[in-house]
Amino acid sequence: MRENELIAALRARVHDAAGVRGIGSDCCAWTPGGRTCLSVDAVVEGVHFAADADPRLVGRKAAAAALSDLAAAGARPVGAVVALSCPPRWDGLAVMEGLIAELERHRCPLLGGDTTGATQLTVSVTVWGEAAGARLLDRRGAGTGDLLVVTGPLGGSLASGRHLRPEPRFAEGAWLAASPYVHACMDLSDGLAADAPKLAHENACGCILLPADVPVHDDVPVMSDSMRAACCDGEDYELLAAVSAAHWPQLQLAWPFPRPLERVGWLVGQPGAWCEGPDGRLVPLPWSGYEH
Amino acid sequence: MRENELIAALRARVHDAAGVRGIGSDCCAWTPGGRTCLSVDAVVEGVHFAADADPRLVGRKAAAAALSDLAAAGARPVGAVVALSCPPRWDGLAVMEGLIAELERHRCPLLGGDTTGATQLTVSVTVWGEAAGARLLDRRGAGTGDLLVVTGPLGGSLASGRHLRPEPRFAEGAWLAASPYVHACMDLSDGLAADAPKLAHENACGCILLPADVPVHDDVPVMSDSMRAACCDGEDYELLAAVSAAHWPQLQLAWPFPRPLERVGWLVGQPGAWCEGPDGRLVPLPWSGYEH
Repeated sequence: MRENELIAALRARVHDAAGVRGIGSDCCAWTPGGRTCLSVDAVVEGVHFAADADPRLVGRKAAAAALSDLAAAGARPVGAVVALSCPPRWDGLAVMEGLIAELERHRCPLLGGDTTGATQLTVSVTVWGEAAGARLLDRRGAGTGDLLVVTGPLGGSLASGRHLRPEPRFAEGAWLAASPYVHACMDLSDGLAADAPKLAHENACGCILLPADVPVHDDVPVMSDSMRAACCDGEDYELLAAVSAAHWPQLQLAWPFPRPLERVGWLVGQPGAWCEGPDGRLVPLPWSGYEH
Repeated sequence: MRENELIAALRARVHDAAGVRGIGSDCCAWTPGGRTCLSVDAVVEGVHFAADADPRLVGRKAAAAALSDLAAAGARPVGAVVALSCPPRWDGLAVMEGLIAELERHRCPLLGGDTTGATQLTVSVTVWGEAAGARLLDRRGAGTGDLLVVTGPLGGSLASGRHLRPEPRFAEGAWLAASPYVHACMDLSDGLAADAPKLAHENACGCILLPADVPVHDDVPVMSDSMRAACCDGEDYELLAAVSAAHWPQLQLAWPFPRPLERVGWLVGQPGAWCEGPDGRLVPLPWSGYEH
């Protein structure tokens, strides 16, 4: 399918959103009322998915991974633009159909894009959002003594194929952004062992992880090193937040979602990353997360 | 260079823009005052540049091609986010340095991005802008009888290497957006023979091109079919606008830029694309533009 044919097929499938100028324009346009945000995420054949992956799931994953960044900010989607670099052996229309379906599931219209030829399938999704409430969360804003908490169980995402169906945590992100006791937030894509130190570093802190307290996903095989899997597998797309330790019980009590908010570590003043060793003493964190 | 090292090196080179939250966040954030817009453009190894291209020029081209869409809308840049999929044999930092230098030349801060491994270099740039004046131009808004005009000479971009150094026409785009006699605008990336019919189609029109009137760039070799080169070569990144025919003389007189605005065709009511044949009669346009 040539670029023009693909664009024509896509235009038949998408509808312009109210108040946002979209497909068919060089730029999509919108007049926002408040704080807005932008994030880009790319998925690449052989890195984020296999050469024989279902093209619809590839599109779905690309959309969900990008939307997850909006969710972590406590934003709601305004729209998305997509750069599709597609080799002839991939069904580019199916990729885009999976992508559009996932965007629509989160009320995010496709507003435009760019399609090119390629030898390797790359789908780069830029999502545009606005604050769902009064503020947007960020990786920054936390400090020494804050608790690190996660919104759901981690690990086993790659082996189980769950990584192709990430679930952006919009409701959880909006709730966290509305709480004054939540200081910083990000989504977990590279694994807690990689992402928690990043969050700490952004706040000029170090972190202590509590691997025994990290909730382990059912997708982690029973016979495996489940603690390591939960900390290192990556592609969980749960949210990691830094919250006021003094208000942690209040947050736990108020948390309205079925899966509990779980404590997985602390921010500390000294740069670095540690965890408790077998004898209860702190040792440098023995793992790093997954790097794409 | 690993992803984390690349990001650290980039952070040392970019500075947060006033009022815009950028690098180091999952989302960049901004509170706009008026109409905003978004556009994405990807450049791919083997499609838009050769495997032995200068990585700084690749970055420069990626940035300029994306900025050109803002220019065509009459927007000013607010910032950009970049998805870089980079094989080890490419110097990803040099790509990003060329990209950042080009963004900064147009006062466009780099606000964030995503880096991944790949076997083929792909640079996808999303630019965020706001109306430079009262409105944003679009491909739509024109009608039958409008003149098609271009902001500069066309052709020879690929053979001369000029395609690696596109010049976004921000001043011209802002001027066109400020004139009530300009009805629609786009930038010329695929060649007039491909892009003029696209502009016509968006307005439920056809077009007649005047190939003999199309200004030919000095980069087109003297002995070549210069008319065809000007219409078909592509990657010129001049602006194509549809303007009120009755006000064309006024626009010409008022046009403040050294290179004249030049008339290259008409929009007509009947769908299709034509040009004048050797005997002065209209014939179907014999060319289509470059398709990436």
